Amino acid sequence: MAARTIRVHIENARAKDALFQITPAQWDAACARHPALARRLEASLGWDEDILEGALKEAEIVIGVPARRERLAERAPRLKWLHTTLAGVDAYLPLDWLPPGAIFTNNRGAHGMKAEQFMRMAYTMLHTRMPEILADQRARRWRQVFSPSLIGKTALVVGLGDLGQAAARAGKQLGLKVIGVSRTGKKVQPADAVYAVTALDRLLPRADFVVMAVPLTPETRHLLSRARLDLMKPTAGVINIARAPVADHEALAEKLRRGDLAGAVLDVMEPEPLPPESPLWDTPNLIITPHISCDDGEHYMDITLDLWFENLARYLKNKPLKNRVDPRRGY
Amino acid sequence: MAARTIRVHIENARAKDALFQITPAQWDAACARHPALARRLEASLGWDEDILEGALKEAEIVIGVPARRERLAERAPRLKWLHTTLAGVDAYLPLDWLPPGAIFTNNRGAHGMKAEQFMRMAYTMLHTRMPEILADQRARRWRQVFSPSLIGKTALVVGLGDLGQAAARAGKQLGLKVIGVSRTGKKVQPADAVYAVTALDRLLPRADFVVMAVPLTPETRHLLSRARLDLMKPTAGVINIARAPVADHEALAEKLRRGDLAGAVLDVMEPEPLPPESPLWDTPNLIITPHISCDDGEHYMDITLDLWFENLARYLKNKPLKNRVDPRRGY
Repeated sequence: MAARTIRVHIENARAKDALFQITPAQWDAACARHPALARRLEASLGWDEDILEGALKEAEIVIGVPARRERLAERAPRLKWLHTTLAGVDAYLPLDWLPPGAIFTNNRGAHGMKAEQFMRMAYTMLHTRMPEILADQRARRWRQVFSPSLIGKTALVVGLGDLGQAAARAGKQLGLKVIGVSRTGKKVQPADAVYAVTALDRLLPRADFVVMAVPLTPETRHLLSRARLDLMKPTAGVINIARAPVADHEALAEKLRRGDLAGAVLDVMEPEPLPPESPLWDTPNLIITPHISCDDGEHYMDITLDLWFENLARYLKNKPLKNRVDPRRGY
Repeated sequence: MAARTIRVHIENARAKDALFQITPAQWDAACARHPALARRLEASLGWDEDILEGALKEAEIVIGVPARRERLAERAPRLKWLHTTLAGVDAYLPLDWLPPGAIFTNNRGAHGMKAEQFMRMAYTMLHTRMPEILADQRARRWRQVFSPSLIGKTALVVGLGDLGQAAARAGKQLGLKVIGVSRTGKKVQPADAVYAVTALDRLLPRADFVVMAVPLTPETRHLLSRARLDLMKPTAGVINIARAPVADHEALAEKLRRGDLAGAVLDVMEPEPLPPESPLWDTPNLIITPHISCDDGEHYMDITLDLWFENLARYLKNKPLKNRVDPRRGY
């Protein structure tokens, strides 16, 4: 008996950075890396809804969340699996538009390697007092700003998914003590200890670095609040590689301006692009990176498609899919 | 028979950063860490030659090179061992002032751990295109500058002493291919391959990072010359943690201004402090750090004194000392 053919539609948006578009060449290359699985597929690839409605009528799987999602169950009557090429699905919350019975997966796992590399840099830049050194360079001022060894300092990593685990790995490689915080408090490698988020207030005073790596949900909005920032040591630093609203960036900037916190590296902003008039741009000891901490600039979509094909193998064997988004939790 | 007492003089200079001064408290703490050795010593500690001449008459060992070195053999008739708390002895070259028969040791080994941490940061900052990202922040411009994974890139480390080995270790931790260059070309861990300096021209076109970690001698002045910089890939970066004159920084800055080289991190300048009017300060894609890459800001002198006590144990057993400077080679 011939295996049935699976209809897949890939939906691209030209407004996104090229990194987040799946080109026909990338799709063909991914199929060539997974020939046995690819033979099962009949794929269409569209841009900005050019062929979307027709494709939705037949598609069992869609890669890329359509911009307009109203009445999706009607428009895509055969849809069983929708995959987003992003890790954070906060832009799609609440998930009330998801057709009943359809599975929604995210791109968890595509960001860990690059996040680990970025985090090694971010920890070390803060510890080496690079924000001060860079300000001195701008002021053409030679001042020897020394720092001790990084080994033995403490990183508090809030959220232990793909990004948080990467932050923990990076910390351990540098010789840091890594304390993790998660919803459950369940031990996750390679953190030295993991606590439930209820312990956060007690842990913050111990941290030399606080790393925000939680998904943005109604529960995590301003998780690192003004009051919690005040629990941190003035010599500590903040790193946010998650989503801007999980920390109170305004309160953080005020602390930096007052010198009540040593520094911060923020890779995420609200809104993005950050407008030129934002007071964050020239906040002292704040380094802004343009949401680039976790995305491989050459191979993001190759990594993404490889992870998707792995999941397709599970799908075809009726095994539970990885990276299922829980509509109630919102991640 | 009671072991003879060894007279040691420690000479400090107030003009140096506090990091490079040995306080009585640091000396006492080091003696307490090495009690059996310390019992053999009778130490004097002076500042800016206040008690130098009297101490030199009796001293068998001197820590800290005196500012005035003329007729040192006459002034210090019993001197057998002179130790500098610096690693680079270029400021003391040529070593024609060293009394015949006296051993001169440097501080090799005190810088490796901090250098390794700095190098991980420097490689990653260049690879992540932080010079561009930091310039965008100053211009209040949001532009997503992506970069691929760092793994598999090639670092060419020129000089494989304490600093070069640290640069090699840092590179291997990040997943780089590390090619070393040394005077002899002898294999040194953890470099993947080591070549003699004569191979430099052939190796430069392969490097994504060129790290200068050689001592400054007449032979290494402008080792990374204008012509050699022209052999590098335009996507590559330069890191100098050695001494400014081992690379042609003027030619390097010209290449950066033309966009013929991706970036540079220079921790050493000529002169230091770099004067405010230097054109290097605002050279595009150049990050200047103020000679802080390799010195532990809290424990430099503790590390230094521990290494010196280790060497003292050898001295007392008539074993060859570590870190002997070869007066002919100049390092």
